[in-house]
Amino acid sequence: MHSRREFLRKVSASSMLLSGLPWTISASGDLESPPQGKVIRVAIMGLGSYASRVANAMQDCTHAKLVGAISGTPQKLKDWQNKYGIPEKNCYHYNDFDSIKNNPDIDVVYVITPNALHRPHVLQAASAGKHVICEKPMAINAKEGQEMIDACKKAKVKLLVGYRMHFEPKTLEIIRQREAGIYGKVLYFNGQSGFVIGDPKQWRLNKELSGGGAMMDIGIYSVNGARYMIGEEPIWVTAEETKTNPLKFKEGVDETILFQLGFAGGAVASCLSTYSMNNLDKFFLNGEKGFAELNPATGYGPIEGRTSLGELNFPHVAHQTLQLDEMAGILLEDRKPVVAVDGEEALKDLKIIDAIYRAVKSGKKETLNL
Amino acid sequence: MHSRREFLRKVSASSMLLSGLPWTISASGDLESPPQGKVIRVAIMGLGSYASRVANAMQDCTHAKLVGAISGTPQKLKDWQNKYGIPEKNCYHYNDFDSIKNNPDIDVVYVITPNALHRPHVLQAASAGKHVICEKPMAINAKEGQEMIDACKKAKVKLLVGYRMHFEPKTLEIIRQREAGIYGKVLYFNGQSGFVIGDPKQWRLNKELSGGGAMMDIGIYSVNGARYMIGEEPIWVTAEETKTNPLKFKEGVDETILFQLGFAGGAVASCLSTYSMNNLDKFFLNGEKGFAELNPATGYGPIEGRTSLGELNFPHVAHQTLQLDEMAGILLEDRKPVVAVDGEEALKDLKIIDAIYRAVKSGKKETLNL
Repeated sequence: MHSRREFLRKVSASSMLLSGLPWTISASGDLESPPQGKVIRVAIMGLGSYASRVANAMQDCTHAKLVGAISGTPQKLKDWQNKYGIPEKNCYHYNDFDSIKNNPDIDVVYVITPNALHRPHVLQAASAGKHVICEKPMAINAKEGQEMIDACKKAKVKLLVGYRMHFEPKTLEIIRQREAGIYGKVLYFNGQSGFVIGDPKQWRLNKELSGGGAMMDIGIYSVNGARYMIGEEPIWVTAEETKTNPLKFKEGVDETILFQLGFAGGAVASCLSTYSMNNLDKFFLNGEKGFAELNPATGYGPIEGRTSLGELNFPHVAHQTLQLDEMAGILLEDRKPVVAVDGEEALKDLKIIDAIYRAVKSGKKETLNL
Repeated sequence: MHSRREFLRKVSASSMLLSGLPWTISASGDLESPPQGKVIRVAIMGLGSYASRVANAMQDCTHAKLVGAISGTPQKLKDWQNKYGIPEKNCYHYNDFDSIKNNPDIDVVYVITPNALHRPHVLQAASAGKHVICEKPMAINAKEGQEMIDACKKAKVKLLVGYRMHFEPKTLEIIRQREAGIYGKVLYFNGQSGFVIGDPKQWRLNKELSGGGAMMDIGIYSVNGARYMIGEEPIWVTAEETKTNPLKFKEGVDETILFQLGFAGGAVASCLSTYSMNNLDKFFLNGEKGFAELNPATGYGPIEGRTSLGELNFPHVAHQTLQLDEMAGILLEDRKPVVAVDGEEALKDLKIIDAIYRAVKSGKKETLNL
């Protein structure tokens, strides 16, 4: 695996990336030395498989360090202590978590618990005076999302959301090309986000914990992707749901939803969210003068893509490594990423998802005011 | 350019194609010799640019021969006589066209006039006792389409519609693979059909002649493609229209429409029809076990595609050459193509397009009963 520093060395020759990594690039365009001693110390809450992926990726971070863990399973805490060298004093069970406020060695709590628990967990971390990174979806609806934003504001902590694609070099290069006018007026985005979900007993298929189905988990990539690829906010949404397996996908757990977004500039997005189809992770953006496509567009492995200018070639670095290092910059120095990753940004996705669910029920166009 | 015979020689080794070209393949799977002396003699009505393309392609046909022309422009008739060796006695002006009924040397009239004129021209050809091939869209709405079907039935002539993709080898191979279960249960089709239309004064942007906008001209490829790729008929449709240039695309002339089709088996299709975007001619079909994609999917040049089994490799032959040779088989010997190309088949597209326009207006899901 490339280290972050090695990655930066590799890409520093490429002026194309310069606009994409604000944390590491000074205004003059020179590669900055990492600020000495500036590191965010992260505790992860919820030690499932994605948490392990984040923990592993964080080993390559320059500015983020995994120092704590929160879990309901004592054995998992022991395993993480051994695996990642986490001191026992930085490990918490959910029922003693509030005492984290007295721990000066943890700056941030990264909440990676089931969707419906994000709200209480973020509120808890905020009231303990810790910054929060929350996995996406930030919450199961916009109302909860707003409460979380308000609570973090009140507690004077920052709230970021785990939108790792906002730090992915090929994605950032497409945004740069679009902003540079390479594609002309952008008029169409097609997003296809789906996979076949396995174990029917997992929390992701339990409405109480997931808040929904494929849309909450994988469809959100196309929701968010439509916005960062087009670079505008949608003003309306329509949506159509189909369900082929009502036993596996119970009431309130969406299997497949087509949704369409309209934008003030005339662009439209047409997207698929599904838990029943393999190998769907494609973004396509079309403008009057050019295009961009990513396939895979959001998977953990190397992103592949090309635009009307040609293939996109950047070395692969684990997205979570980039994300945590960049988030360190945001938390420590108020750096501005190319695409915002804060609660307000995440709230827009939740408002769109709320509207998608409303549109499925109403069968009508639902307007949005983001 | 490959001749038809040369093409068949080239592909005869490929068992994969055998199911795809019923005209040339006997029930035993052997390549048949073309029936001696069996040729349909075609007169083309409407001598625009697509008519020239058809005329050129027909030069390579084994079973179809261009022998006549109908035009409102005497100079065009002269040009065609010279270029294609058409005898003057087989040339007609619109106002003397009815006398074609007394011409025993013309079997079929191929109507390639503006959309809104298809109905009167097909009725006229049918009442002259000639078989009719009508360019797509067959008519500007289903009501007219039904009248045309009825008129041809009454006149005991056959009515075919110029769906050239139904004879295109890569398309047929995908249909074969789907029917063979290679993709498993098919759940998703994405069609993107569009181009930037030029001259704002052309008939295609005049509602009186075109009957609509991009949907009638290019969107119909995704309408039809959704059906032959998925292999079912849709049961509902939703649609959303956007217009960025109301001066160029006047009332009733659609610029961009997203539409979605639902199928009884649970499949959904998500399609784009547009007159404002370059380079959009993509079909993608996804099933539980495999996929197929075509890009370009319907253009005149070589179709490119691959499926979960690999690249599709068949030599390019002008689609219109294949179409006319196969249509000769349908007209002369009642051969059944893989996908029907008769009036009833075309009527289904018109019913869907009617429903798309209704859905744009109602903003609701419109049910279909095809």
